[in-house]
Amino acid sequence: MSKDNIQEVSGGVVAPSGFLAGACACGIKQGGYDLALLLSNRPARAAALFTTNQIVAAPVRLSRETVKRGPIRAVVVNSGNANACTGAQGHLNAMAMAEATARELGLSPSEVLVASTGIIGQPLPMEKILAGIREAGQKMSRDPEHGRSFTRAIMTTDTSPKELALKIDTGGRTITLGGAAKGAGMIAPNMATMLAFITTDATLTRRQSKACLQRAVSRSFNQITIDGHMSTNDTVILMANGASGGPCLRGRDLTAFQEALGHLCQVLARAIVKDGEGATKFVRVIVKGAKKEKEAGVIARAIANSPLVKTAINGEDPNWGRIISAAGATGITLDEKRLRLYIGESLIFEGGTSVASPIQALVAEHQGYSIGALPPMLKNIMQGKELDLRLELGLGRAEAEVWTCDLSEKYVTINARYHT
Amino acid sequence: MSKDNIQEVSGGVVAPSGFLAGACACGIKQGGYDLALLLSNRPARAAALFTTNQIVAAPVRLSRETVKRGPIRAVVVNSGNANACTGAQGHLNAMAMAEATARELGLSPSEVLVASTGIIGQPLPMEKILAGIREAGQKMSRDPEHGRSFTRAIMTTDTSPKELALKIDTGGRTITLGGAAKGAGMIAPNMATMLAFITTDATLTRRQSKACLQRAVSRSFNQITIDGHMSTNDTVILMANGASGGPCLRGRDLTAFQEALGHLCQVLARAIVKDGEGATKFVRVIVKGAKKEKEAGVIARAIANSPLVKTAINGEDPNWGRIISAAGATGITLDEKRLRLYIGESLIFEGGTSVASPIQALVAEHQGYSIGALPPMLKNIMQGKELDLRLELGLGRAEAEVWTCDLSEKYVTINARYHT
Repeated sequence: MSKDNIQEVSGGVVAPSGFLAGACACGIKQGGYDLALLLSNRPARAAALFTTNQIVAAPVRLSRETVKRGPIRAVVVNSGNANACTGAQGHLNAMAMAEATARELGLSPSEVLVASTGIIGQPLPMEKILAGIREAGQKMSRDPEHGRSFTRAIMTTDTSPKELALKIDTGGRTITLGGAAKGAGMIAPNMATMLAFITTDATLTRRQSKACLQRAVSRSFNQITIDGHMSTNDTVILMANGASGGPCLRGRDLTAFQEALGHLCQVLARAIVKDGEGATKFVRVIVKGAKKEKEAGVIARAIANSPLVKTAINGEDPNWGRIISAAGATGITLDEKRLRLYIGESLIFEGGTSVASPIQALVAEHQGYSIGALPPMLKNIMQGKELDLRLELGLGRAEAEVWTCDLSEKYVTINARYHT
Repeated sequence: MSKDNIQEVSGGVVAPSGFLAGACACGIKQGGYDLALLLSNRPARAAALFTTNQIVAAPVRLSRETVKRGPIRAVVVNSGNANACTGAQGHLNAMAMAEATARELGLSPSEVLVASTGIIGQPLPMEKILAGIREAGQKMSRDPEHGRSFTRAIMTTDTSPKELALKIDTGGRTITLGGAAKGAGMIAPNMATMLAFITTDATLTRRQSKACLQRAVSRSFNQITIDGHMSTNDTVILMANGASGGPCLRGRDLTAFQEALGHLCQVLARAIVKDGEGATKFVRVIVKGAKKEKEAGVIARAIANSPLVKTAINGEDPNWGRIISAAGATGITLDEKRLRLYIGESLIFEGGTSVASPIQALVAEHQGYSIGALPPMLKNIMQGKELDLRLELGLGRAEAEVWTCDLSEKYVTINARYHT
């Protein structure tokens, strides 16, 4: 964000006025914080987006209803256990979390949202959780360190905390936005096991907060995929408490807010992909020239989720045939002759064949490398930490962009051993 | 196959009367055979099924037309180079392979099918291939060793040759069927980089050979997936040369033939999955109780292709929540309360929750294992080399079955390094 009127500040979710956080290690997972509370000292107009998985966790089912009812004051989150596939007891446990949090903070349970992340199918250890809620409740503070503790408490296999806060000078007033996110596994478009909590002291109507959040999420969290696996628990919450004063945002102020919110979501979404389980590269897959945006999205995701494409990127191997093949396997009609594939800025494939000229091919054969790969030029690009794959279909004007990471041996190691 | 009238014999594709094979190492890939010819000494009624990828290799485009025209006498196959994404030159090269084979064996090019497998996007090394066709042509023989050489020559990252031959006594006459297949990577339903060549001395009409092949493939090669990535080159060819004598099969003879062909395809398909890149387990994913067969298939494939499910199986970790979550993410409407999940014969999930009773949960907690996992019972099942996952949706009567393998660190290693 290069704009003069926006600057990064510390504190994550407690950076905006009127927000407090507290976290503790209550023993759900081994070592580290695993329970956190977030509180607004006044009612916040909240919006929330949830997983579109048909199988949703108990806290998602509960919070989906709570957020519709009215203003929100607090969020309780635990990591280490997803409270998903836990039946009626799971629902009672999610309600008990909201009730305990309300009791601790002097609120009504209908003002408390609940989120969980971790292993599926196991009952929540409620004794530990209720003790944790009491402990975290004692610690509520707006110290930036507490924002960081909140961010740490929501992590599962994440290797680094993901948070950002931005101060926006809209001319007349100063608005602050803060966000914390977790990701790492089961990350795919439409909210995959990722949680993100965004706070702001801006004044927004409920409709505005929903519209702003949807717009920001569609261009950030919903365009990332690590393993194509959408989770049962994904949740993004925006709480706008109006503590910066003034009437509801409109005109240029609203635009500035939307822009800052979009930036914040993009930074957090990128951080999730970069910290994908075992990830060593950040990859943008851009599909242009499709007939429909939906088709562009399907092709971009097919490329981004192909284990063959992802392992080639991990091996820094310009095996571009796998990209073309992944696009072709979606069932969407393509014209091979119109396709153009770029890796970075290099045109690799055009008119149904590799762009290598006969002379390049001759040189390649003499120097002992394969011509489809165009190595001297591509090797540097493939060795970078960030990589763009751009496929132009030549069929229309619709496009889509998806962010992903590579697939490494470490992804397998992490996921083969996570449970036990 | 326990039936008395069917027995296994040696020789693979040359086991049936009137078929000869020859193979050689012409230098496309490093070390080992990479070019093979298969010849019927009389015109064979042939059927072939090809990839449904929108991007198809030149040999697929050529063979798709050739097989429609009339009887087939020979097949030429190379491994190490897919001749895909190679433009007009690729098509000329595929035709040149057919022409050279025809010249060598005294046939017309319109009687020769061509198949290629290997790296995408590189021009075929035609000098080597033409020399290879001459060399293989000199070696044509019906010695069972030559059947094995053919099977070896079509391998890429396969670690073992896959072939089978069956002799069927139909009462009146003896029919023989032989098959060779390769797989290992880019394996997904609807013909993924897999090649299979099936020969028989049975007498079939062209229509019969097509119908029999389609039926057998739908219940074998089309229900396997290793990495969900459909290739540009998949091809299954059946050649029926009638050398066993007699009129076209019908009635019980045809049924016996269909049964043997189905068995042969299933054995080869299983062998492909078991030899999937880095595979350590064979997994059958069975989805029952769907409203539509197509929906059952989508869910079965989503489970079979989920990297989270596959890595859990690799880690022998009964992390069943990933199976439920993968099913829920397909977008197909499910009722969580009606789902029943079995691992092996053990019911794991029912009525929206783990089937562990409160007493089991108590025991589990005291013994220090997690109750969702039901370890004592499941640990043995997870440690087996073969595993059944059965998900009952409780919505209808349609079902589907998909065969897959686990996802190991070795899959990543193989695919990150294959090209260079």
